[in-house]
Amino acid sequence: MEIKILKDILGANEQIAAKNRELLEKNKVFCVNIMASPGAGKTSFVLQTIKALKGKFKIGVIEGDISSSIDAETVAKEGVPVVQINTGGECHLEAIQIQNALNNLPLADIDLLLIENVGNLVCPAEFNLGEHLKVLIASVPEGDDKPFKYPLMFTTVDALVLNKTDLLPYVKFNVDNFVKTIKNINARAEIFKVSCTTGDGVSEWAKWLKSRIK
Amino acid sequence: MEIKILKDILGANEQIAAKNRELLEKNKVFCVNIMASPGAGKTSFVLQTIKALKGKFKIGVIEGDISSSIDAETVAKEGVPVVQINTGGECHLEAIQIQNALNNLPLADIDLLLIENVGNLVCPAEFNLGEHLKVLIASVPEGDDKPFKYPLMFTTVDALVLNKTDLLPYVKFNVDNFVKTIKNINARAEIFKVSCTTGDGVSEWAKWLKSRIK
Repeated sequence: MEIKILKDILGANEQIAAKNRELLEKNKVFCVNIMASPGAGKTSFVLQTIKALKGKFKIGVIEGDISSSIDAETVAKEGVPVVQINTGGECHLEAIQIQNALNNLPLADIDLLLIENVGNLVCPAEFNLGEHLKVLIASVPEGDDKPFKYPLMFTTVDALVLNKTDLLPYVKFNVDNFVKTIKNINARAEIFKVSCTTGDGVSEWAKWLKSRIK
Repeated sequence: MEIKILKDILGANEQIAAKNRELLEKNKVFCVNIMASPGAGKTSFVLQTIKALKGKFKIGVIEGDISSSIDAETVAKEGVPVVQINTGGECHLEAIQIQNALNNLPLADIDLLLIENVGNLVCPAEFNLGEHLKVLIASVPEGDDKPFKYPLMFTTVDALVLNKTDLLPYVKFNVDNFVKTIKNINARAEIFKVSCTTGDGVSEWAKWLKSRIK
């Protein structure tokens, strides 16, 4: 019974996601869904990506949070169009919310749309939004055992960004084991190591993202 | 329609949670539900709590994870009874899972039962398990803005433990602002600052917990 309800929700979500994708392609907008635990550095990663690519693409952002508009305000300072979605308790973004957000963005003036999902390593992985790429930000202080505990998220994504590498000297985290684990469970995922605090590694990510858009 | 379904689920959960509470009290077991983001240090906190209190109480542990038994194996090394719950995709523990776990624990030989919930700052806050205390572990690298973004979790808990204080020199985190925010939104929450890596602050937490049990 419960599973049936979930399937219905996911079925409806898929239909709306397909419509979102159609609208994005009609407007030549490349869309990236950025997911992570709370505090892994999604907003800092969005900011770094904007800084790295704003000369090359017209960028727009959708911020997803349960409440508050802190992230949207931060991103708006970069001079890009931003829509904040407050889910009001829901632990993930769904395609219908993105549909509403797309109607409030100047799509004709956007080449690259970054969606910052709600901070959660579980449910966002189940909901397609119509995006072209799913990206997971893992962060060093979270520990290197997370792929075993949150397998759907780690196997769903097209790219895995290990953030906060500047904290490697201060915490236990085996980068080689972590990368090996990811390669075992998700061979197609591109892996990047970055620090959004120092900017290290951001250019490799930006270069790859650029190659995916063109 | 969706809200109605959620209410039914929560209603059923409340009934089972009440039965769990009854069973716990019949067996004189004090139960703590520990919640946090992925990687905030829940397992390390469980281990530190066991070390601090194992001479004083007979301790049992329930480990909740989507998959894997890494945490249960780690905790079992401390020589305490452990049950691992694998939710198989669900992003939180529910009372029915705790009911099953309680049936698999030697309750007559346990004074203090620690439940480690699934790593998630959202949904676990909605589900009572029959516990006596709800505790949230926040961690320094997650940033000091989390109370604004995950308000239900921060307002639901009886105690707030700020973990990874050993990383304060390396990241931006305003402890005074964080504490002030918590006090504004949840005046009754006790606040502790700890490092489960160095052990700093654990004794204050253990002392308070002990005072709540007796």
